[in-house]
Amino acid sequence: MEAELIRWLRSRIPAHPQLSLGIGSDAAVVSLPSQRAVVTTDALMDGTDFLLSEVDPVRVGHKALAVNLSDLAAMGAKPVAALVALTLPRANALPLAQRLYEGILPLAERFKVAIAGGDTNTWDGPLVISITAIGEPVAERVWTRAGARPGDHIVVTGEFGGSILSKHLDFIPRVDTALHIAAHYRVHAATDVSDGLSLDLNHILEESNCGALLNLERIPIAMAAREMADREKNSRTPLDRALGDGEDFELVMILSAPEADRLCEDPVLRGDGEAAASVRIIGRITERRGLWGRVEEGTPEPLVPRGYEH
Amino acid sequence: MEAELIRWLRSRIPAHPQLSLGIGSDAAVVSLPSQRAVVTTDALMDGTDFLLSEVDPVRVGHKALAVNLSDLAAMGAKPVAALVALTLPRANALPLAQRLYEGILPLAERFKVAIAGGDTNTWDGPLVISITAIGEPVAERVWTRAGARPGDHIVVTGEFGGSILSKHLDFIPRVDTALHIAAHYRVHAATDVSDGLSLDLNHILEESNCGALLNLERIPIAMAAREMADREKNSRTPLDRALGDGEDFELVMILSAPEADRLCEDPVLRGDGEAAASVRIIGRITERRGLWGRVEEGTPEPLVPRGYEH
Repeated sequence: MEAELIRWLRSRIPAHPQLSLGIGSDAAVVSLPSQRAVVTTDALMDGTDFLLSEVDPVRVGHKALAVNLSDLAAMGAKPVAALVALTLPRANALPLAQRLYEGILPLAERFKVAIAGGDTNTWDGPLVISITAIGEPVAERVWTRAGARPGDHIVVTGEFGGSILSKHLDFIPRVDTALHIAAHYRVHAATDVSDGLSLDLNHILEESNCGALLNLERIPIAMAAREMADREKNSRTPLDRALGDGEDFELVMILSAPEADRLCEDPVLRGDGEAAASVRIIGRITERRGLWGRVEEGTPEPLVPRGYEH
Repeated sequence: MEAELIRWLRSRIPAHPQLSLGIGSDAAVVSLPSQRAVVTTDALMDGTDFLLSEVDPVRVGHKALAVNLSDLAAMGAKPVAALVALTLPRANALPLAQRLYEGILPLAERFKVAIAGGDTNTWDGPLVISITAIGEPVAERVWTRAGARPGDHIVVTGEFGGSILSKHLDFIPRVDTALHIAAHYRVHAATDVSDGLSLDLNHILEESNCGALLNLERIPIAMAAREMADREKNSRTPLDRALGDGEDFELVMILSAPEADRLCEDPVLRGDGEAAASVRIIGRITERRGLWGRVEEGTPEPLVPRGYEH
C-alpha cells in the first residue's frame, strides 16, 4: 500500500527549491540557508481531534498540517517542509490516505511547504495522523513564550470561541500575518491559541514570570461562540467560550505599548492581502502574578485559565 | 498529563550545543551549520511493531528512536535532534510515557541527539509512537538509494534474519559505522534493512535502474535465523530468513569494487571501537535488471524480493 501511495504522491508533489532530496530514500534533505531549523510536531487522532465518521478526510488532512503551521507562525517562523506519518485503519487505507493528502497538498502549496517525506502504516486501530513541520526564522530572534514584561500589551488576531462548529477543521493558519509582523515589529513573546485563549496566554505568563490583566469587553468573540451560547441556553456565555474553547488557532502576541499601538494601525493588516487580519489589544502584562480580568474600569477579578488539557 | 510529563522531561534532558531553544514554546530551534537538514519520520504501533502486553516500554522507546537513527545512518548523516509524538492509552498514561522516555533518553545521549520537543496525547486506542529525527550530512554528498552502477559491489554490515527473537527491539543503529564510512569512502547508494535484505536491496535496484547478483553462500546469517529454522522444522531455511525477515537494521551499501575491497580491510571497522562492524561483500550490481542469486559459481536463479510490505 505504501509503495502505491508513494507512486501516487510523487506525481502530485511539486518540486521545491529547498527540497534537495525528496521522497524515495531513507530520509529527505532540506536546505536551510539560515542555519536554523524551527521544528514542531503534532499528532491528531480520530475520536479526539476529529470524527472520521462525520467529516471528510480532506478536512482532516488540512487540519493536521494547519496546526503545525500555526505553531511555526507562533514562533515567527516561515514554514519550509513537512513530514507526514499516517497510521491508517486497514480497510480502504489507500483511498483514505489519498483523501488526507488532498487536504494536505493544497495547504502545503499555498504556503510553499515541501512535503519532504513520511511514513505510512496500516493497523486495526483508528486513524492517527502525525505531522512534523520544519521552518526557518525570518528575523534574528524567534518568538517564544518567555519574554513578556510588565507594561507590555497583549495583542490577538481574529476572534475566539465556538471553533468546534467548523473553524477547528477549516482554519487558515496565520502564517502570512505572523511573517509580516516578525519582519516589521519587535514581539516580546507569542503563542497560538490551540488549547484556549486564557490557558495559552497563561503559558506565556508562566514562562515569562509575570501576570496579566484582561479588558474583558475587548475580547473578540466569534459569531460561532454566540451561536453556541444561544443554542444551549443554560450553558457558558459567549465570553466564557472565547476564553476557554480553544482551537481558534489565532495568535497571541506581547509587544511594548507603543509597538502594539503601531501594530493596530498597520496598513498591511488592515488591507485585503494574504497577511490581512484584525488585531486588537485585549489587556496588558502586569508584575502581579496570575490572570485577572475586569470590565471597563471595574475591579479586577481573578480568571481561572481554562481550555483543553492534554 | 502533558504538562506534568514536560516538567519531568525538562529535568532529565541535558543541554545540547545545537539546541538553541528546547521544550517550552510552540516549536524548538535547532542549529544546523551545514545549512542542510536530513529528516525522517517513523511511527511504531502497538500490535504491529511491538506487543506492549509482552515487552517493557523502555525497549519500545529505544526502538522508536533507533529506527529513525538507522534511517539517518543509511543516508550517511549525523543525528542532531528528534521530536517525539506519543499517542498513549488513557490508563496510566504518565508512567507509560516516562518508561518510553527511559528508553529514548539513553539512546539519544549515546548518539548526542537533542530531544527538541514533542506532542503527548491520550486516547482510547493503543499506543502509537511517532518520532522524527533530524540530522546533518557529514560529507558533501548524502547517500541515497539511487546511484548504484553495474560492476559495483554490494556490502552489508552485520548479520541477517530472525530479528524478531530480540534484535528488532534492542539493536543499536549503525550510526558510528555509517559516519566513519561516510567520512572515508565514496558510497554510490545505501539503505538500511528494515523491511528485509532482499526487499530493501531491491529498492536500491529500482531507484538505480539496475539489477544485482548475490553470492548466496556469502549472506551473513544470524544465529537467531538458525535458531528459528531449527525450532520450526518445516519452516523457512536460515538463508530464506536472512533474505526476507527484516528489521535487521543493518546497512546495505553500494561501492565500486576497489572501494568495497578497501572497506573490508578497514582497521577501524575491524577494531573494537564504537564504529566496529563486520562488513562483507555479498554480490555485485549488474546491468541485467532484477535480483538474482547463485551459490558459488552456479547458475544464477531469480530471487523474489521478500520482506515486510507496509
